[in-house]
Amino acid sequence: MRRYVTTAALLAGAATIAMPAAAKEGMYTPDQLPEIAADLRETGLEISPEALSDLTGFPMGAIVSLGGCSASFVSPEGLVVTNHHCARGSVQYNSTAENNYLENGFLAETKDAELQAAPGSRIYVTVAESDVTERMREGTERLSPNARYDTIEQRMKDITAECEQDAGYRCLVASFYGGDQYKLIKRLEVRDVRLVYAPADSIGKYGGDIDNWMWPRHTGDFSFYRAYVAPDGSAADYSPNNVPFKPEHHLKVSRAGLEDGDFVMAAGYPGSTSRYATLTEVENTFGWQYPMMVTMLNEWIDTIEETAPEGSDARVKYESRLAGLNNYEKNLRGQIEGARRVGLIDRRRIRERSLADWIAQDRSRAQYGRAVRDLQALSAESAAAAREDYLYNYATNSQMLGTAQRLYRLAKERQKPDAQRDPGFQERDMTFFRQGLQALDRRYDPAVDKAEWMLFLDQYLDQPANGRVAVLDRALGLTGNVDRAALSQRLDTYYAQTDLDSAEQRLALMNATPAQLEASGDPFMKLAVALYDYERGLETESEARAGRMLAVRPTYMEAITDWQRSQGVVTYPDANSTLRVTYGKVLGGVPRDGMAYLPFTTLEGILEKDTGEDPFNAPAKQLEEIRQRDYGPYKLDSIGSVPVNFLSDLDSTGGNSGSATLNSRAELVGLLFDGTFESVNSDWDFDPKTTRTIHVDTRYMLWVMDKVDGADALIEEMDIVD
Amino acid sequence: MRRYVTTAALLAGAATIAMPAAAKEGMYTPDQLPEIAADLRETGLEISPEALSDLTGFPMGAIVSLGGCSASFVSPEGLVVTNHHCARGSVQYNSTAENNYLENGFLAETKDAELQAAPGSRIYVTVAESDVTERMREGTERLSPNARYDTIEQRMKDITAECEQDAGYRCLVASFYGGDQYKLIKRLEVRDVRLVYAPADSIGKYGGDIDNWMWPRHTGDFSFYRAYVAPDGSAADYSPNNVPFKPEHHLKVSRAGLEDGDFVMAAGYPGSTSRYATLTEVENTFGWQYPMMVTMLNEWIDTIEETAPEGSDARVKYESRLAGLNNYEKNLRGQIEGARRVGLIDRRRIRERSLADWIAQDRSRAQYGRAVRDLQALSAESAAAAREDYLYNYATNSQMLGTAQRLYRLAKERQKPDAQRDPGFQERDMTFFRQGLQALDRRYDPAVDKAEWMLFLDQYLDQPANGRVAVLDRALGLTGNVDRAALSQRLDTYYAQTDLDSAEQRLALMNATPAQLEASGDPFMKLAVALYDYERGLETESEARAGRMLAVRPTYMEAITDWQRSQGVVTYPDANSTLRVTYGKVLGGVPRDGMAYLPFTTLEGILEKDTGEDPFNAPAKQLEEIRQRDYGPYKLDSIGSVPVNFLSDLDSTGGNSGSATLNSRAELVGLLFDGTFESVNSDWDFDPKTTRTIHVDTRYMLWVMDKVDGADALIEEMDIVD
Repeated sequence: MRRYVTTAALLAGAATIAMPAAAKEGMYTPDQLPEIAADLRETGLEISPEALSDLTGFPMGAIVSLGGCSASFVSPEGLVVTNHHCARGSVQYNSTAENNYLENGFLAETKDAELQAAPGSRIYVTVAESDVTERMREGTERLSPNARYDTIEQRMKDITAECEQDAGYRCLVASFYGGDQYKLIKRLEVRDVRLVYAPADSIGKYGGDIDNWMWPRHTGDFSFYRAYVAPDGSAADYSPNNVPFKPEHHLKVSRAGLEDGDFVMAAGYPGSTSRYATLTEVENTFGWQYPMMVTMLNEWIDTIEETAPEGSDARVKYESRLAGLNNYEKNLRGQIEGARRVGLIDRRRIRERSLADWIAQDRSRAQYGRAVRDLQALSAESAAAAREDYLYNYATNSQMLGTAQRLYRLAKERQKPDAQRDPGFQERDMTFFRQGLQALDRRYDPAVDKAEWMLFLDQYLDQPANGRVAVLDRALGLTGNVDRAALSQRLDTYYAQTDLDSAEQRLALMNATPAQLEASGDPFMKLAVALYDYERGLETESEARAGRMLAVRPTYMEAITDWQRSQGVVTYPDANSTLRVTYGKVLGGVPRDGMAYLPFTTLEGILEKDTGEDPFNAPAKQLEEIRQRDYGPYKLDSIGSVPVNFLSDLDSTGGNSGSATLNSRAELVGLLFDGTFESVNSDWDFDPKTTRTIHVDTRYMLWVMDKVDGADALIEEMDIVD
Repeated sequence: MRRYVTTAALLAGAATIAMPAAAKEGMYTPDQLPEIAADLRETGLEISPEALSDLTGFPMGAIVSLGGCSASFVSPEGLVVTNHHCARGSVQYNSTAENNYLENGFLAETKDAELQAAPGSRIYVTVAESDVTERMREGTERLSPNARYDTIEQRMKDITAECEQDAGYRCLVASFYGGDQYKLIKRLEVRDVRLVYAPADSIGKYGGDIDNWMWPRHTGDFSFYRAYVAPDGSAADYSPNNVPFKPEHHLKVSRAGLEDGDFVMAAGYPGSTSRYATLTEVENTFGWQYPMMVTMLNEWIDTIEETAPEGSDARVKYESRLAGLNNYEKNLRGQIEGARRVGLIDRRRIRERSLADWIAQDRSRAQYGRAVRDLQALSAESAAAAREDYLYNYATNSQMLGTAQRLYRLAKERQKPDAQRDPGFQERDMTFFRQGLQALDRRYDPAVDKAEWMLFLDQYLDQPANGRVAVLDRALGLTGNVDRAALSQRLDTYYAQTDLDSAEQRLALMNATPAQLEASGDPFMKLAVALYDYERGLETESEARAGRMLAVRPTYMEAITDWQRSQGVVTYPDANSTLRVTYGKVLGGVPRDGMAYLPFTTLEGILEKDTGEDPFNAPAKQLEEIRQRDYGPYKLDSIGSVPVNFLSDLDSTGGNSGSATLNSRAELVGLLFDGTFESVNSDWDFDPKTTRTIHVDTRYMLWVMDKVDGADALIEEMDIVD
């Protein structure tokens, strides 16, 4: 008998019927799910698609937002599971030299031992949603662009304020399809959030920045919070008398988990996508903005690294900014590379042509044609404005100047009644405003801030003269052939003279009047005052464009929706931080020719990666358990080990972090925490061949809780199902 | 009907019977193949294994060496196919600003248009092989270590000289199993080698250094030479009267190619492996030598880059050295990483224990036990000596000093009869010696050489005093607390005063007597003379260890061979640049947890990688042909495209480059040209899970010749089979 070993056989034990893979694009709003019920069922959903559209029923009632991250209830006692990277700020906040929870992990043995989460931590539980489109849009088409913009902004604030009359709730008017639809979402704002359990960084952040966006992945990116409320069930600030929140619904946690090819879905709060951006927008972004940004970011990073050398106090303050800039730079490079690989520009050009052809087929679609043309013109105008303002915006991008500008703006806004102030300057925003001013001390160093500013000013000065902004030139004395050394010395005096480096002073200035600030001798405040009118002018222009966009984009989105409907496709709105559902399969992929991602990683992969050095330094106990092959009941037979992370073809983006990953019965099988590097471009264009979402497997989570961290009480508290 | 998409289905259209993959370790000498005939047949070989053991029959008679690379005859007119990177020196040699063959490729439309290969190019055609073990070893066991070493070296020279009495042949006594066996190999030395066809760098070197050792790969690493001889068939220097060599055998070229899982073998000249190194040797290499080297190489690279900045004339001279150092550094990192991943040290420890257990089982194996113990002691001693000499060796590593040392040594050696001179200093070596002295001008710059030397001297001086070598310290005036700035200035005077930077002077000194050189005022020659006796002393010590090794390692290898035979395993000798055969399957792999290499890359992968910038800048014509999907008869249906490169589980190493990759009927299906990054460690330990060899597919070669370069006449000249 001749025996053949083939690569296919090597890669998978099981032989299965082949069919072309079609990843499932779509971040659907729950109310869209009944429309695609047939496909959901065919893909494998076992519960009713209609049930998924009830925001306060099961399972959606168990899905919550942390503001920026997603999470879900997993016990009747308010236990919330989310990503480690979503709760890490709270771990850091509670860590001391003696109790380094980042390094050692944290586990509250009892509820009494649970720790207060970092200030500002919130759990938002949706309690109601209603359509407010008519109230938002009524009569706005007749207004001038700026009036339209102002009216819509004012109505949004009014509706929010009405809703928030109900104390303890936070409300939000969300815009869908570029302003074609508006929904009011009312959410209980849990303010007493406590940290229950977080594994050590060496599990929860395993692979660190190196593995960020990468597959294969071995990150235990899970942590647990608990929601607390007043004894009467209302939202309240922290108090020892508070009691665990009793959610109406919570998820069961699957120990059986998924197999390659199984149905999977995720429910969470994706932040922002641009799937319907025009060719002009895409060309501007990928042809100009992103490449410019990559160059700028690299110089920026170099500047910080030089001014705040490793080991210096300044470096500690700028670690987080450096990580953010590096992360952004890597993301942009991935996006540029991805756009090139999938031929984004060509694909978008083809889409626009096809849409135009469809519009041209029927005279009744003439208003769509006008909207498309208007949108294209407006896109070009916005792109031109962005290019014009680009270097000015950087040239004013120092933390000290920004602080002065925010304070002066606040003083101005505070002259208006609260309801008429711009968003971000209303009373409801003041807690965050104050926290921002306080936190500056932890991330500011005058020498670094000045070096960054000087970098930006150098680029501003290097541009052709017609790009310069007179008001800035006058205020900084940038006339004629600027002597850079002299400018640098002048900036030094700014930093020497300013009082804004004192948190006390900054907070005090929150109550200053415009006149007081205008009389200030602080060089940064003088500059803020000098630039104020110019910047308001820019803002008015920008709002005029936004107001015109608000008249055009809804019609454009209706065109897209009609056109796609004619092809049997349901159009989902771009992500906007509201609850969405994405569904598909557990699925590896072919990120590029000749290479494949397998759908699961294994415990043994941790041994393989581990170097003993951060970020590949798993705890000794964990390594020992793996060497012992102590899999417990968490093993997936087809891979012969405990699955650590897995891939799916789900459609996700930033904000989805922590999303409950659910099986066909809506049991928790994982937590969504990242996308592959080839997917970073998917915010613009979902490529079914390369877009893959990364999840931490509940089997790994339970294995760590059981075998490494001894979190037995929590396992006991949850409903574990097979 | 429920349809499942699984990763396995996504990755491969065909479902096949699964069995665990066991890659085929082994670089067998052709005469070993009958011993493993059963496995060869079971793996898929269709021709007789016995036929493969006939070096001058078919197909082995078609396999040739280029000295450092492998190649094969593919027409009755002496046409030779090898890797592009093996023939690139000849392309470069013939390139001018007007005819840039590196950039444009080169194709001789007729034989008349073929170009002389670079000086020193050779094609070695094996004509006979005989066992000379008895003559080599007879009586040597009774000699002292140094006498044993000298005797074996002298016999090697004598046998070689006898064999080379036959003009036109180059002979070689090769040592197998650490000196347990010796073979005399007689090869026709074709000295008139001509370049027939090389694709452009943008095909033949596609991916460049970035893709070096990497998969997925898309390199068209093939080129053609032709062997020319005198009209009477004897080897001759270039002459327009020479005629194409008529090989006894040549390979047919397959257009059908291979499929995933198919039998494949390669025949070529792997350079060197250390599969049987002891634990002590492995520990010394991976625990000390390689990590030291990586650090040193990085500093060395930095030094050259600083002293020879990009764009400078000096940089041009050092490009090749920089590429070599970077290549070596990447290789060492890969090896260190690979050793960690496979647990090399532990695996070797286990092997030594198992061998010891087997030896202990039977009193008749006592001599094996002694050999193992002696070898371990000797390994430790050699490791200690290497550490001791490490910094001294670098401290004398300047190109100018090295030149002076070689010249003075030549003068000394020339006082002996030719037959008694050390290898490298005999008359047969003088052509290469002269070429080396001449070529120095193209890769030497005094400022860079001095900076390198200063780097090494700094490290030498930084070590504890007991590591210093008195004779070097005296010669360079390195006493007490050395003033580095003063030393640096003194070295400047060396470079200012030396005459050795003149090629004419260097060549003239090839005829100098020792006395003349000893009287020289050249600072480098004075240093060479001063160090001579010390270095000969080191050499004598090293030869004494080698002499002891020659008494011990053969017995150790016999122990290994007996032990493995008892387990049914045939022991192949470590690679030694002699002809070897390796066989296995076309096979992708799992280089690490969660990731897979697919066995083939495709034309479309070139589109995917192409950025238009070197090294990802395929010719426009090629890109257009790919976009047109103009596959011709070269398509592999299962991948839906023309396969570009493919992976196999063959066992290969440096020197295998250009090896004929053969199917089960010994038809040419590809050329071996690289291994994956995870395989670089395989010189020490063949890991069946990760070791993969990379081949260029004949279908891609023929596609490029047919569709891109129009090499129709060459296709016509070869025997193409389906």
